[in-house]
Amino acid sequence: MPDAELEQLASRIRSRVRDIPDFPQPGIVFKDLTPLLSDSELFAAVVRRLADDFVGRGIDLVVGIEARGFIFGAPVALHLGTGFAPVRKPGKLPFRTQRVEYALEYGSDALEAHVDAVRPGQRILLVDDVLATGGTALAAARLIKELGGELAGMAFVLELGFLRGRERLGNLPVHTLVRYGANG
Amino acid sequence: MPDAELEQLASRIRSRVRDIPDFPQPGIVFKDLTPLLSDSELFAAVVRRLADDFVGRGIDLVVGIEARGFIFGAPVALHLGTGFAPVRKPGKLPFRTQRVEYALEYGSDALEAHVDAVRPGQRILLVDDVLATGGTALAAARLIKELGGELAGMAFVLELGFLRGRERLGNLPVHTLVRYGANG
Repeated sequence: MPDAELEQLASRIRSRVRDIPDFPQPGIVFKDLTPLLSDSELFAAVVRRLADDFVGRGIDLVVGIEARGFIFGAPVALHLGTGFAPVRKPGKLPFRTQRVEYALEYGSDALEAHVDAVRPGQRILLVDDVLATGGTALAAARLIKELGGELAGMAFVLELGFLRGRERLGNLPVHTLVRYGANG
Repeated sequence: MPDAELEQLASRIRSRVRDIPDFPQPGIVFKDLTPLLSDSELFAAVVRRLADDFVGRGIDLVVGIEARGFIFGAPVALHLGTGFAPVRKPGKLPFRTQRVEYALEYGSDALEAHVDAVRPGQRILLVDDVLATGGTALAAARLIKELGGELAGMAFVLELGFLRGRERLGNLPVHTLVRYGANG
């Protein structure tokens, strides 16, 4: 897709992102994507673009991060003709799981995937709605590696550039459709 | 779709459902659908069938119930060419919400939707992975009604027939692809 088309898509996305001050905590401005989801044409265009960036790259499986990552990741998987696997918070997945813990600003959190979610050698596309500090994405990437998968790329609708998540994710191909700078 | 095709699809689904004893509580046998999701052709066929049953019925919006309902609901929305709205557990949605509480066997639970998730008069398809007792689906149906939506139907991949959820849901069109009797 030429850059002009991506810019036009990005502009449509920005018009459908709702800023929610002080959610989930005071001082945080949350980017609410539900207005985008309710716009059927825009939702379809976003999914198509997220997937198209990875067509022909040999993706075997899409992994989505609970819970908003499911909303974009599952349709991206169908678009690419792959299966889908969920990465979830602890205790949510019913079968045997692999777990990774990761540090938050205060305390820690964890993510789990089923031990058979990824077959060794599978090329994985990781999908979530927003790339913020990159902590969650990095933990999911570790989980995929521990299960024997090869992380082929990550796709997010929004990138909060001022949080520098991309730097933490290193050399992996990270695709985002809209990037917010320090001034939103 | 002729019944023979639905029976064949149902048989493929059954072969990809994993029984997990004593999850999430002792005595419950949980139906794990992640093996279905990892089968790209079957996942696509399930989404197509869930959506096809409601083509031509004037669906304006698909509502999915957190979190597994997102995995099926979002692609069904794209298939029908509609938007998607999430119904979530309390505290997860960032904007102003409408809430319904509902009774569980012990205690109660609640669901929320954004106050602008549904526009008055919109015809809604509710999607979730499993119809069990119907308590969650009934609560989501109330939420949709309180927001001014018209519930046009509900679609589930699996139905645990022995829990009689369908009876609680009354006259609404309830479509399920696989029905388990008392003997699983």
